[in-house]
Order: sequence, then C-alpha cells, then structure tokens
Amino acid sequence: MTLAWTLTCSACDRTDDPAGLPEVCPLCGAPWLVRYAHPPAPDAKARLATRPWTMWRYREWMPLAADEEPVTLGEGGTPLLPAPRLAAALGLEALWIKDESVNPTGSFKARGLSAAVTRAKGGGARAFTIPTAGNAGVALSAYAQRAGIPVAVFAPTTTPPRILEQMRLFGANVQLLDGHIGDCGKVARQYAAERGAFDVSTLREPYRIEGKKTLGLEVAEQLGWTLPDVCIYPTGGGTGLIGMWIAFAALLEAGWVAGRAPRLFSVQSTGCAPVVRAFESGSARTEPWPDPWTVASGLRVPGPLGGPIVLRAIRETSGGAVAVSDEALSDAAQRMAGAEGIDAAPEGGATLAALELLLERGAVRRDERVVLFNTGAGWLYRS
Amino acid sequence: MTLAWTLTCSACDRTDDPAGLPEVCPLCGAPWLVRYAHPPAPDAKARLATRPWTMWRYREWMPLAADEEPVTLGEGGTPLLPAPRLAAALGLEALWIKDESVNPTGSFKARGLSAAVTRAKGGGARAFTIPTAGNAGVALSAYAQRAGIPVAVFAPTTTPPRILEQMRLFGANVQLLDGHIGDCGKVARQYAAERGAFDVSTLREPYRIEGKKTLGLEVAEQLGWTLPDVCIYPTGGGTGLIGMWIAFAALLEAGWVAGRAPRLFSVQSTGCAPVVRAFESGSARTEPWPDPWTVASGLRVPGPLGGPIVLRAIRETSGGAVAVSDEALSDAAQRMAGAEGIDAAPEGGATLAALELLLERGAVRRDERVVLFNTGAGWLYRS
Repeated sequence: MTLAWTLTCSACDRTDDPAGLPEVCPLCGAPWLVRYAHPPAPDAKARLATRPWTMWRYREWMPLAADEEPVTLGEGGTPLLPAPRLAAALGLEALWIKDESVNPTGSFKARGLSAAVTRAKGGGARAFTIPTAGNAGVALSAYAQRAGIPVAVFAPTTTPPRILEQMRLFGANVQLLDGHIGDCGKVARQYAAERGAFDVSTLREPYRIEGKKTLGLEVAEQLGWTLPDVCIYPTGGGTGLIGMWIAFAALLEAGWVAGRAPRLFSVQSTGCAPVVRAFESGSARTEPWPDPWTVASGLRVPGPLGGPIVLRAIRETSGGAVAVSDEALSDAAQRMAGAEGIDAAPEGGATLAALELLLERGAVRRDERVVLFNTGAGWLYRS
Repeated sequence: MTLAWTLTCSACDRTDDPAGLPEVCPLCGAPWLVRYAHPPAPDAKARLATRPWTMWRYREWMPLAADEEPVTLGEGGTPLLPAPRLAAALGLEALWIKDESVNPTGSFKARGLSAAVTRAKGGGARAFTIPTAGNAGVALSAYAQRAGIPVAVFAPTTTPPRILEQMRLFGANVQLLDGHIGDCGKVARQYAAERGAFDVSTLREPYRIEGKKTLGLEVAEQLGWTLPDVCIYPTGGGTGLIGMWIAFAALLEAGWVAGRAPRLFSVQSTGCAPVVRAFESGSARTEPWPDPWTVASGLRVPGPLGGPIVLRAIRETSGGAVAVSDEALSDAAQRMAGAEGIDAAPEGGATLAALELLLERGAVRRDERVVLFNTGAGWLYRS
C-alpha cells in the first residue's frame, strides 16, 4: 500500500513517514500534520459528480491509498441549512447552520473517527482506546465495531447517560472515572502502553484532523465553491477548527475557490475557556483551566493538546475566540429547535450565543455570510 | 404557482386538480396518487451532478412548482451501507442497509413530512394535526416548526418517552390517548374538523408518498442506476413501500434504469400483521387487527388505509409479506449494531429477521442483491 503523504510536526521541523501507527512527533510531542505529496489532480473536482454523498467523496484530499476502501458508516454529506428566522431576528443577510447531528452516531466526531479508524486498521491496530467527554467515544465505538476491532473507553462519571448507553450498544468496554477528560487521558495512555491498544485521543494520532477537514470542503462545495466570511465553531479539543483551517487554505491553494479564508471564531464555555483566555492575553499556548465545568461536555477540555494550532488558526484568519455562559448556550440551543426545527447540542447552541456576542461587539458585520456549526444532536445530552 | 400534476384515485377512476389542500378521493375515500404531466426532462439526470445531497435533488420527480423552495431540513441522501459481516453470516453475496436513522429527526418519516408540509404550506394550511405511533409525530413537529405553522399531535400513551420528548422540543402540542394509532386518528380527524387544522395522517393527504418515493430514487442512484433484486421493508402505514414501488416503476418507464422492478417484501410484527394475513389469504384488502401490540411502535397500525395498495405492490412485483416476532426483531436490531455499527430501530431489525426467514423459505436466493431498510434510530425507542 503506497501512502502518498508525509507527516510534518506542527511545532518543530521534523518530518516522518506515515507507515505503521504514528502518534505524535517523537522529538517534541506536538501533533503531526499531514502533508500530501501532490495536490488533488485537476479532474478530481469533476469526479465529485458521481461520488456518494459521504465525506469520502473527497478521497483525493484524504489519507487513503489509491486502492483502499475506508471504514465508513456514511459520515459527512450533512446539510448546510439556511436559518432564515434566526437571520431575520439578528438582522443578518445570510446565515447557515451546518447540521452535524445527522451524522452516524449523532455528531461531527464520526468524521474524525472514520478517518482515524481507517488508517489505524491499515496500520495494523488490534485494539483501540480513547478518553472521551462523550461523542468521540460513541463514534469510536461504532467505527471500531464496523472495523471488527475491540475498544476500551475511559469517560468521566459526569458523561451524559445516553452517551454511555450508545457506547455500550456498540460493544465498547466503558470505564468511568472521577475527573475530567485530561484525567481520563492519562489512564487511557497507561492502558494503551500496557495492553498494546492504539490511543486515538484528539491529536495523539494524525488523522482525526484529516476527517474533520471535510467539514470545510463540504461547506465550500455546498456554497457552490465559494467561501463564507465567518465560521463560528465550538472548540473543545480543536480538531474541527484546525481541520477547516487547513481545508480552506488547501482549497485556495489548489484554486478550487477564490477570495480569502473565512475568519474562524472559536467558542468556549465560561466554565472552561483556555483558548479564549490565551487569545485575549496574546499567548501562543493555552494554560490548563482549573476545575473545568460546562453542560456542553464536548467543551470540557481544560488543556487541549492542539491549543497552539487553534490559536494560530484564529489569529492567521483574523478571527477570534469568545466564551459564553452555560445559560446562554443552553438557551440558544433551545432557540435553534424553536426557530428552525434543529435539535442542537449545547455546543451547537454556543455558536449562536457567540454570534450574538460578536455582532454586539462589531466583530461580525450583518452583511457577512456566516456559518454556525451544530456539532451534534441535542437528544444525547438529555437525561 | 403552476402545479404540473393531477391527483388520481388509487381505487376508482376519479381525477382531480391539486389546488388547495387535497385529502382523499371525495368519491370513495381512498388515497390519492400523484400523476405528473410530464416525465422528468432528459437532462434532469445530468443536473443531479450539481445538486445538494438531499431528497430534493430529485425535484423534477417531486410535487414542487418550478420556482418553489421546499420546507427542508436536509432530509434524504442517507447512506446505502454494505453489510459485509451480516452478508457473510447469511451466505449472501450482496447485502446493503439503507440507513434512514441519519435523517433529520432520526427517521425515514422526515422524507414524507418534508414533502407534505411543503405542499400544505403552499396550499395555505394554518395548523397541522397528526395521529402518530412515534416518528411521524417527531418529523411533523420539526417540519411544522421549520415552516412556522403550529401542530397538535395525538399519540398513544404507550409511545416511547423519548419520542414524546422530541415532539415537545419542537413545540408540538402533544396529547396522549389510551388506545392505538387508529383511535388517535379518529380524535385527530375530529380536531381537524373543529379547528381547521390540516390532517397529515398517512395517506390522508397525497404527498407523504411522494417524499418516500425518493427512497427508491436514491437506492437506484447509489447502485449506479441499477436496481436491487429484493427490497425488504417494515410496513406500518405502508407509504414507504408504496413510494418505492411507484419510484422503481417510474425509473423503468423513464429509462433511467433497465431490467425489472425489485421484489418488494413487507415485514410486520406477529403482534400486528394485517398485511401478512391478507397476503397469505389472497385478499385484496386488510382486515383490522384486533388488540395490536409490538415494541416496534411504527408497525402498530391495525388497519392501514393503504393496505390495498401495499398488497398490489407486493403482488405485482412478485414479492411477499412476512411476520416476525418482537423477540426476533429486537434481537436482529441488536445484531445490526453489533455486526455493522448501526443503531437500528426495532422496525429496521425486523427486516433482518425477515431476510433470515425468507432465505430459509427459499423466497430469496443467496446470489440476489438485497437491500434492507433501517427506517429509524434505535435510541428513540429506549427508555
């Protein structure tokens, strides 16, 4: 199997071959980024016309060997829904919600885990482990099942019960721990070392970003190969935002779209906002957030490994980072259901609350084309 | 607005104009079927290449005026997933699961209600009502919300609590009744008459079938414009099966596919199997099923209005009807999750249990191309 890409460290100059089961840069411990040998062939765009409606339609942009079939449940191809009522209420001209709740397993995590499980299977993984605040564990459980590979999940005891139920449905060995996802991560890494399981934690392997990249490719295709002005994205571990940043840059470089990259705004909860604090203080890296808490369990990531890359992405695109309260994000999620019929996750609600804040501050103008990302289904969070 | 179709009665010779809010044939009370003035233009197939991945990509096949925008949440475009592990276990060469759980609101009902709400909005409806055993009520609530039209739902007290919760999330006025969906239907019709609400019960308006038709169009496109040999479909009200029957016939007539229509098999629960009983006794219509009960709430339809059309569809295609026990369908749903990572509804599980029965009986051969339909998400049914 020929793998037509190399791994480049996101922090130092190291590059490496992608054979086997790469994790992070052995030199500095920072996440790998994927660099492809060739840009997609000129006819790749035309080929899309006959491809199925999943994220693997962009296979020329993805870490896949020429003859390889991905581990797929039909992830991606999610709707980009105009939100006319919310737009009117806010005085906006053009507002969309990218509705990731209709992915397999109910969230955007399906994209990253489909890519990661595909590559790990190709690299010879015989078992998986992951620390998870929720949806990533559900997605990994389903994709591992689809690949026929066992999985052990380490989750905080505070994980919503429906999310735990879904993991168990897909046959995962679920272990609950007191503490947050960072604490679970330590135990998962120990488990991986002892049992020879492959750890697919956020950014501890290179391919979840590549799956998330398709969010950006899809938005561009759905807007007729144009780019929006502003993307507002809920940020826990940060792979989605990083993936879109890379996707938009690659689309511009390949000439598939014209203009400039959208301004990327990261949204966090006031109960756990390490990226916002670092952005506001001008720092290049996040500091661990003490006693993190938010109902948006996907945002409860006190020390994201990808913090420096997220900060680079929002600064280079002239975006920003804002924190909203749990009350505001929950209320906004409810309004997405009430105004547009979308059962949004709390994290999705956070993007609407953030948009309101950004309009107030003048950081987003009412004549701009704005995309909010609802990363998952609201039902998973209810008790 | 020019509506380029007429309504033809499914039982007598009556035809009618589609203006306003048509219900059933005023002469005989049977459901209307839609007949289009023209087949899709020859270039309609080529136009698909640039259309979004929702059921409305087939707008030339749909009840939509030329300049009209549908009420949409991005329904359709669901994956047709190869099921290699299940196929191997059954000794089948080619088995797919059409996974409708990733529709907005978590079920195939999204298709029918998107079409019905679109047309009812065009026809001037100011309020909706529906009797529902579950998923249809969730879908109507979301689409009505998206259209800005209020809705009253009448549901059995036995409806799964999560389904009730979803309806309320989307702002529906939910009223619980002792009894089955037939009992709820009577109250809904009375409510419609008294309050001027439009009743979107299964086959009491002509357009839910048209939405379901896209299931057949999608399967054909996903198989590269070929048809499978066998479709196994869980049948409550029957719109999905009827819709596919019409779709496959229309595709053949328009020359978009070659060969012959798939054999359609209807699956019901042994606790409520009016179609199976009528099929086996050679009758042209169903008899009301006394004391209907099944955990697959969508199959708890004791006297489907579309019974005669379903029977015609399965007979004309040389298909059939089989009943499976609640135990068998629940076990099969669990195996879909365990073997393929799909969180299937009990109704979806029923199709796998039926396939096993049909293989045993020799009604389906192991070298045939078989599609199972998982009509919804399993999580909605758990307590």
